[in-house]
Amino acid sequence: MERKYKIALCQTLVEDEKGANLAKVARFVIKAASNGAAMICLPEIWNCPYDVKVMADTAEPENGRTVAFMSELAHGEKIYLVGGSIPERDGDRVYNTSFVFDPNGRLIAKNRKTHLFDVDIDGGVKFKESDTFSPGNGPAVFDTAFGKVGLAICFDVRYPEMFAEMRDKGAHLVFLPAQFNTVTGPAHWELLMRSRGVDNQLFFAACSAARNMRAKYKSWGHSMIATPYGDLCGVIDEREGIVYGEIDLDYMDNVKRQIPLPR
Amino acid sequence: MERKYKIALCQTLVEDEKGANLAKVARFVIKAASNGAAMICLPEIWNCPYDVKVMADTAEPENGRTVAFMSELAHGEKIYLVGGSIPERDGDRVYNTSFVFDPNGRLIAKNRKTHLFDVDIDGGVKFKESDTFSPGNGPAVFDTAFGKVGLAICFDVRYPEMFAEMRDKGAHLVFLPAQFNTVTGPAHWELLMRSRGVDNQLFFAACSAARNMRAKYKSWGHSMIATPYGDLCGVIDEREGIVYGEIDLDYMDNVKRQIPLPR
Repeated sequence: MERKYKIALCQTLVEDEKGANLAKVARFVIKAASNGAAMICLPEIWNCPYDVKVMADTAEPENGRTVAFMSELAHGEKIYLVGGSIPERDGDRVYNTSFVFDPNGRLIAKNRKTHLFDVDIDGGVKFKESDTFSPGNGPAVFDTAFGKVGLAICFDVRYPEMFAEMRDKGAHLVFLPAQFNTVTGPAHWELLMRSRGVDNQLFFAACSAARNMRAKYKSWGHSMIATPYGDLCGVIDEREGIVYGEIDLDYMDNVKRQIPLPR
Repeated sequence: MERKYKIALCQTLVEDEKGANLAKVARFVIKAASNGAAMICLPEIWNCPYDVKVMADTAEPENGRTVAFMSELAHGEKIYLVGGSIPERDGDRVYNTSFVFDPNGRLIAKNRKTHLFDVDIDGGVKFKESDTFSPGNGPAVFDTAFGKVGLAICFDVRYPEMFAEMRDKGAHLVFLPAQFNTVTGPAHWELLMRSRGVDNQLFFAACSAARNMRAKYKSWGHSMIATPYGDLCGVIDEREGIVYGEIDLDYMDNVKRQIPLPR
């Protein structure tokens, strides 16, 4: 098993049209793969605007267009693709769902956001995701050629026990497709991402959409990769771009040796 | 029950002589009480230097001099005193123990450090606390006139589940007597203290000793009080001094209302 590999977070600015988002994501993923990324993550809700009505209207089933597109992209580029999340329709219900593909384009994991974003912040952001989405039932941990990887979505990050569970199941890296906003972002984004890395002594990669000043929901951006020591090995501002980071398992083991946390 | 009250953290520089430390702590506590603090915390290991040999040699039983001194001080000043921690001897064993007193000088809680500080950081700090101390068995939560308060010691902060337990038991405030050092301090001190506050939506008060450049173990200092939103409502640098902070239960409830975290 390789002890070092490169990952990439594609911080795309979400367009109104689904086709435009698919085309853009293809461009970003192809570029990241050509730069050597073996595992590539997309933002939370990247194929349509983060707007309750739009998300409900454009939700697709698992055998829909966007899942097929991601599978093809992973296969074509021979990379692991953590497909951020998209609104998924399953019967009467809609979920905020992340699909993960291996380099053969095989669907190897699926995670539905467990803790929905229901907040009402004074003079700021009001959002009730549970009006649109049904909740999932906990985080995912999946196998890759590089070891086990954990996955949860955005507001789930406020539940530390989910990440302890991933650590206990052997994850060395966690992906969190997410979209904080311009109120909770400056207050909590970096704090939460870095502390999940430090507390669990693993790499923690949060992939946001870029900020769209024309959109109703203004994403914080700042996709970042925290190390098991809590430093950042990759970060971007609020604009569109790709964050690269090296996942180094020897570095992780070294942190665990220096500060053992027996349980 | 009062919804607002003031707390104080006494960041003392630890002297070699026990008598000098008791006299200094008396001065600090009297000053903090005269400035309106209703609950006052001392640092981890404040009555002798943080040195394995000294701590083993100067450890006292629960009916020893330092506990009697703290009881008298709490009673005299009519304050809650969270007595940081001192080396406690109990039969053949030595513990890193925190004693808590109410305004009548009654011992109302006792907590022995659960997770001992056994680290070996490259080119930096090496310490094996378990050569001297025996471990305790989990955090304390005690009742006060202001509500329930949690308590753990230093390295315990790296175990988020202990603070989740305090939150679940109803703590609105947690005290952490602690001494990080000049390596782990800049890396993790503020990150950990603020994230325990945000994750559990409670006030989190960490009280360190001041940095003594003549001592073997160089304390990070930076005693601080984090709010349930993760801001700092009181902080100091590495020097001797008192940090004051307002504990506001309405503010805490407001944070919980804005960002509900149902479990």
